[in-house]
Amino acid sequence: MQIAILLYDKFTALDAIGPYQMLSPLPDAETVFVAERPGLVRDDTGALAFQADKGLDEVVRPDIVVVPGGPETAAQLENAAVLDWLRAVDAGSTWTTSVCTGSLILAAAGLLEGRRATSHWMFLEELRAYGAEPTGDRVVFDGKYVTAAGVSSGIDMGLTLVGRIAGDEYAQTVQLMTEYDPQPPYDAGSPAKAPAGLADKLRAAFG
Amino acid sequence: MQIAILLYDKFTALDAIGPYQMLSPLPDAETVFVAERPGLVRDDTGALAFQADKGLDEVVRPDIVVVPGGPETAAQLENAAVLDWLRAVDAGSTWTTSVCTGSLILAAAGLLEGRRATSHWMFLEELRAYGAEPTGDRVVFDGKYVTAAGVSSGIDMGLTLVGRIAGDEYAQTVQLMTEYDPQPPYDAGSPAKAPAGLADKLRAAFG
Repeated sequence: MQIAILLYDKFTALDAIGPYQMLSPLPDAETVFVAERPGLVRDDTGALAFQADKGLDEVVRPDIVVVPGGPETAAQLENAAVLDWLRAVDAGSTWTTSVCTGSLILAAAGLLEGRRATSHWMFLEELRAYGAEPTGDRVVFDGKYVTAAGVSSGIDMGLTLVGRIAGDEYAQTVQLMTEYDPQPPYDAGSPAKAPAGLADKLRAAFG
Repeated sequence: MQIAILLYDKFTALDAIGPYQMLSPLPDAETVFVAERPGLVRDDTGALAFQADKGLDEVVRPDIVVVPGGPETAAQLENAAVLDWLRAVDAGSTWTTSVCTGSLILAAAGLLEGRRATSHWMFLEELRAYGAEPTGDRVVFDGKYVTAAGVSSGIDMGLTLVGRIAGDEYAQTVQLMTEYDPQPPYDAGSPAKAPAGLADKLRAAFG
């Protein structure tokens, strides 16, 4: 089983690493980080570069495709090389997935038309422009398409998918090995839970 | 404020990225990934390489030090270059932190003697050999030393530290931006919560 994780300039690191940490222990899985061209790809802060071991033309039939998001995915929404690759690999994939604004890239490739999907809360409504139906759920399955909400939700997406593929006990083993027993020190992780006005303030600043 | 995240052969990716995603938005923060030598450093699965932009000799006075763990930290426990660097930067740091078995590396450098600390549940008792006092808590503060339990706990550690440094509202903003509202599909993230016998089975296989 091949898992392909797409990298592109200014991706968000945890968007990629959350699903990676959960999915890569799947039985007989080979994970490959892929970008338009092999080599270093910098994330959204500029402080970190991942190595893409393969270029898009070298990854032709992954079983699972993971598309991370980032604050500047706009360039990818018009990147024909990436969109063409996504359409091509989606034709053979068992699961096509995204985290955060990665769902906008899947949608721009035409893969989420008429489907329920999610994204970072700040960009959720943008899915409609591509004919997708946004939901506020953290992890959304619609057929083989699995989309996750913002950044950290890729962990929940990955672990849920491990359960679907390898069964509950296998997923629980991965959860225990990664000690995924979250204890956030605050309860402000969604617009509904955050202090009043915080989401609006962020929307005004970034949206 | 400089945040230095240590990389070494076979580190665990989420151990590094959890704190990174939370800490790097701190006001006026510069984050640097550092390894014995600059260049690519492969993680524990071999599928992913991070770029260390700096060598140890180039990072001399970070304010925050983050040491990730990994299933094969043993080599680092005897790596004089890494242990000497940790002792040197700890002398000037405001916070010295670890995730997972990264605490064993801090302990091997002599930095946790007589201190309360945590680690991945499977390796918790190994802290005693270095004079540290293991606790089962997910995030442990003892003075400026902050240790986190296994893999995913670095997210909680990072967010807690953001609150200490920049205040609750700032930390809540980071939580909302990363949509850190965890909804694990299972509740097996600690030995006490996992199905009966699972932790023992894993201890027998890996411990």
